[in-house]
Amino acid sequence: MTASAHLTGVVPPLVTPLTPSYDVDTASLARLIQYQLTGGVDGVFVLGTSGEGTFLTDEQRQVVLEAAVAEVAGQVPVLAGVIDTSTNRVAAHVSAALKAGVDGIVATAPFYAATHPAEIERHFVRLASLAGDTPLYAYDIPPRAGTKLPAALVMSLGEQGVIAGVKDSSGQETSLRELVLSRRERSLDDFVIMTGSEVTVDSALAFGVDGVVPGLGNVDPAGYVRLFKAAVSGDVAAARDEQDRLFRLFDIINVADRSRMGASSAALGAFKAGLYLLGVIDCPVTAYPSIPLNDTEIAAVRPLLDRAGLH
Amino acid sequence: MTASAHLTGVVPPLVTPLTPSYDVDTASLARLIQYQLTGGVDGVFVLGTSGEGTFLTDEQRQVVLEAAVAEVAGQVPVLAGVIDTSTNRVAAHVSAALKAGVDGIVATAPFYAATHPAEIERHFVRLASLAGDTPLYAYDIPPRAGTKLPAALVMSLGEQGVIAGVKDSSGQETSLRELVLSRRERSLDDFVIMTGSEVTVDSALAFGVDGVVPGLGNVDPAGYVRLFKAAVSGDVAAARDEQDRLFRLFDIINVADRSRMGASSAALGAFKAGLYLLGVIDCPVTAYPSIPLNDTEIAAVRPLLDRAGLH
Amino acid sequence: MTASAHLTGVVPPLVTPLTPSYDVDTASLARLIQYQLTGGVDGVFVLGTSGEGTFLTDEQRQVVLEAAVAEVAGQVPVLAGVIDTSTNRVAAHVSAALKAGVDGIVATAPFYAATHPAEIERHFVRLASLAGDTPLYAYDIPPRAGTKLPAALVMSLGEQGVIAGVKDSSGQETSLRELVLSRRERSLDDFVIMTGSEVTVDSALAFGVDGVVPGLGNVDPAGYVRLFKAAVSGDVAAARDEQDRLFRLFDIINVADRSRMGASSAALGAFKAGLYLLGVIDCPVTAYPSIPLNDTEIAAVRPLLDRAGLH
Amino acid sequence: MTASAHLTGVVPPLVTPLTPSYDVDTASLARLIQYQLTGGVDGVFVLGTSGEGTFLTDEQRQVVLEAAVAEVAGQVPVLAGVIDTSTNRVAAHVSAALKAGVDGIVATAPFYAATHPAEIERHFVRLASLAGDTPLYAYDIPPRAGTKLPAALVMSLGEQGVIAGVKDSSGQETSLRELVLSRRERSLDDFVIMTGSEVTVDSALAFGVDGVVPGLGNVDPAGYVRLFKAAVSGDVAAARDEQDRLFRLFDIINVADRSRMGASSAALGAFKAGLYLLGVIDCPVTAYPSIPLNDTEIAAVRPLLDRAGLH
Repeated sequence: MTASAHLTGVVPPLVTPLTPSYDVDTASLARLIQYQLTGGVDGVFVLGTSGEGTFLTDEQRQVVLEAAVAEVAGQVPVLAGVIDTSTNRVAAHVSAALKAGVDGIVATAPFYAATHPAEIERHFVRLASLAGDTPLYAYDIPPRAGTKLPAALVMSLGEQGVIAGVKDSSGQETSLRELVLSRRERSLDDFVIMTGSEVTVDSALAFGVDGVVPGLGNVDPAGYVRLFKAAVSGDVAAARDEQDRLFRLFDIINVADRSRMGASSAALGAFKAGLYLLGVIDCPVTAYPSIPLNDTEIAAVRPLLDRAGLH
Repeated sequence: MTASAHLTGVVPPLVTPLTPSYDVDTASLARLIQYQLTGGVDGVFVLGTSGEGTFLTDEQRQVVLEAAVAEVAGQVPVLAGVIDTSTNRVAAHVSAALKAGVDGIVATAPFYAATHPAEIERHFVRLASLAGDTPLYAYDIPPRAGTKLPAALVMSLGEQGVIAGVKDSSGQETSLRELVLSRRERSLDDFVIMTGSEVTVDSALAFGVDGVVPGLGNVDPAGYVRLFKAAVSGDVAAARDEQDRLFRLFDIINVADRSRMGASSAALGAFKAGLYLLGVIDCPVTAYPSIPLNDTEIAAVRPLLDRAGLH
Repeated sequence: MTASAHLTGVVPPLVTPLTPSYDVDTASLARLIQYQLTGGVDGVFVLGTSGEGTFLTDEQRQVVLEAAVAEVAGQVPVLAGVIDTSTNRVAAHVSAALKAGVDGIVATAPFYAATHPAEIERHFVRLASLAGDTPLYAYDIPPRAGTKLPAALVMSLGEQGVIAGVKDSSGQETSLRELVLSRRERSLDDFVIMTGSEVTVDSALAFGVDGVVPGLGNVDPAGYVRLFKAAVSGDVAAARDEQDRLFRLFDIINVADRSRMGASSAALGAFKAGLYLLGVIDCPVTAYPSIPLNDTEIAAVRPLLDRAGLH
Repeated sequence: MTASAHLTGVVPPLVTPLTPSYDVDTASLARLIQYQLTGGVDGVFVLGTSGEGTFLTDEQRQVVLEAAVAEVAGQVPVLAGVIDTSTNRVAAHVSAALKAGVDGIVATAPFYAATHPAEIERHFVRLASLAGDTPLYAYDIPPRAGTKLPAALVMSLGEQGVIAGVKDSSGQETSLRELVLSRRERSLDDFVIMTGSEVTVDSALAFGVDGVVPGLGNVDPAGYVRLFKAAVSGDVAAARDEQDRLFRLFDIINVADRSRMGASSAALGAFKAGLYLLGVIDCPVTAYPSIPLNDTEIAAVRPLLDRAGLH
């Protein structure tokens, strides 16, 4: 199975389970993948923001890529993040991902240096030439990459065949709707539009996005699959109820004490704590130098799992 | 000569000259270094933001490190930027820089993911343990790294001996003065405080910083050396006049058409255009995917060099 | 008819028509109100951001209030903006609005000075005591007021009976959904939640908001009424189609040349140009010192009206 | 004495003393003015940001204007803030200030609505026509007004004779230096450039600004006067020492618990607490709805006054 078919549905951005000594825990990763497949996901996305890709060495990234491709074994597409500061550096990750046999490549705009849309366009054009037949997806995540990908640029790259789609984690419903409307007006039916926002999925599916890449899907893949199925079958009320339940499950990102760790650590630590409490992964630690959730904080995730019906 | 002596004076963050095909141009780099040494600089800083470090592959970074160390040949300290997204990735750059024989390491906070001061502290502590006897400097550049290093954290890291100093490119005079005052109050006389702001150097030296890391120093090292000497000799008027001249030279960053390139490309492109027009480097191109200055824009740099007395 | 009944549906924030010499044009305002009533709106909101309330003198505000109350003549509720920098200054506007006989008061957080949620709470508590039986609504418009009203504060004010509801113009779907969920969990059924975002109304109604306060509703009130009716009747497809049409009509805010005027002038100028072209108001000028749309820009609004079926 | 002479030196932006019931305390205001005159200030500025002008009703503003003009009695110029959202509203304050007999008018850009430089220019042009012979000063305070006044606009307004000068509270040394350099290049010697930054005054005077409008000058006017005199006499070391002492005195803005009040309340509350502890004003309360400093916080100001030699 490849991603050349139009990507739709639920494609969680997998966390990268680590050992207490910060090595990639491939056994836990394998269990996480089985947990996702059992949940019915339509694909998995490794080495994204939730996958702490920017925290891992090249060697660790390679371990994740190979383990994921092997464990998924072609049952669903495997997408790989190639997040790095600039074209040349991303290019090296593209090569590694292709060698590992992934089904799709996901790249942000260059960051650290401030770039212009014309420069971002050059970036994706170069990456696409390296990716060849493997679909390249643009990853729009302004708070991290420092740039909002303009809708006009995204659609132009789509029309040129440079990118196969976009993962929009901007949280800006207006720009996401602009993409959907533009796609229809240009009859770019094969262009994939996914949202990365965990808590507005029913809305996004209702106005026409193809699927969701939810960090929270690590913890509750089956919930997102139910949400997606309800939405595409037109059962608005069921989709909203599922979304509301997941909205409250998302409160787990607020259990950690933000006076002692960053927003990223708090959210990813909560996802990992949930998976740890559910018995999917062995250790809830986030990548160095992130501060991990302490025992009290991990315990505080439990009642929120319970409330959401996860045991 | 090593950096273990207290670093002071003018330490330009060298641009990385490239060939038209985007390879590192070591011959031009060598000429740039001779231009700096002839100008009287007190050190050079490679692979910083001006050095487009985040645009270069690991191999290209290595070429720059080795070429710089060889060309400088111990006449002044060579500082190396190790800018990357997180501790483990930076650690690899630290090893490479140490192997190349640099005299100091310059690291930013982790970026892309949002981090907390406690996490930034862990980051620097780990890096310092890798750097060993080679001084580690914190590089505070909020618009790029997404975080302002809190003065209290910087001073705490200094007191702990984790960092030997800080390069402050925040442009926030108040926080820079807080560092200088805190250093005096804690009698941390060996702690190095450098400003990265090109156009406020006389002020900064007057209130007690040790030196400057000016991107514009690529183009006019001798001017910054004169400014520094005037300031430390107490000739306030001469320092201000020199600063005013350099302030107007800095207008070269505004010649490029910002509707077609980013701020970074415009500034670095102007520095390289200046060096190209002065015959120091062979090609003014900036790193891919940056848009280069066109011929008209390059030509527009010339009268600003002339006005500043650079020929 | 009063606003003490639960406010729902379409409540456009009316522009304030002006004469070429910047007086309030009450004849045009009366026609605008009839245009709205004919369109089937559920209420009108004067002196909001679209109403350029902060550009008008106290005397001009009074003219608007009295003209609106007289023209509406009790057919629908009239809400009045009382936007000003601080509690005491807002209080004067509250008195004036009550005297004019409005059915609801709409207030932002204090602005210019940076305020804390505890201070914003004191602000609304004081205003509520002045408003008496007339419902007070919180107006959340972060880009203008400089503060995002925290959901917890909004719901707390609702539970205390300080505010009767909120108009959310934050554009943040997540926080809007948090309000809706919190309202259900607290069984605060009478608490009114309206969105101020023109282009995401079908989504917002689907997840449970009560209505919309759309600036674009000035130009096409009947369209928003159709959208609202489709949404509440559960016709998701019809609601989306209507929203999509209005989404493209909203492109009128982009016809003006943004290199010569601000975002506010461009948007309000476009609304007024639309109403002018439709024969509803006599003059499309925006309040001094806003730059008005020129003839070319006004003409460029016409084809967008045509495309949306407005003649 | 009038402000038509070139304004220079120390012009503190006076706080507005209030009674416990939030009335203007004219007796305390009179004592504050005498404290300033005794300290040797070159002017006073009422109803600015420190004066909580945006918190006061029109009537309260009038009380302040008249009390200040009467108490100063022509010994130094009295400048008046006319801060409001838009031209027409500011115009009313200009009339009131002129009637009260002030010597200068200080206006920000319009705020709340987003404005363009061309609109800001229209704003100041209109205000200048109302101010007549009374000098109009532009007040650049981006965090409050939401806009940074472009240096090119400021200088253009100066060349046109629209404004007599600028109070720069942007905290951006680079833009302030640009103003000073531009003034010299255009030979606009009469154009007044004042800084509003309390802790970088020696630097600003060294590169050519004319004076300072320091909120902290409420508490220690004599210190700022000594700093100014040292700087203009060329005694760099004495100016820096005085600035360093005042830098540490400025720590009083950090005594309040920021988890329960805003930044504005914390800073103004500290200035008022200092004046209260020094016996200058009767009550340290800030304007409603600001949270006042509590007794513990007020007491914590005392040792910082002592450290700075204020008793």
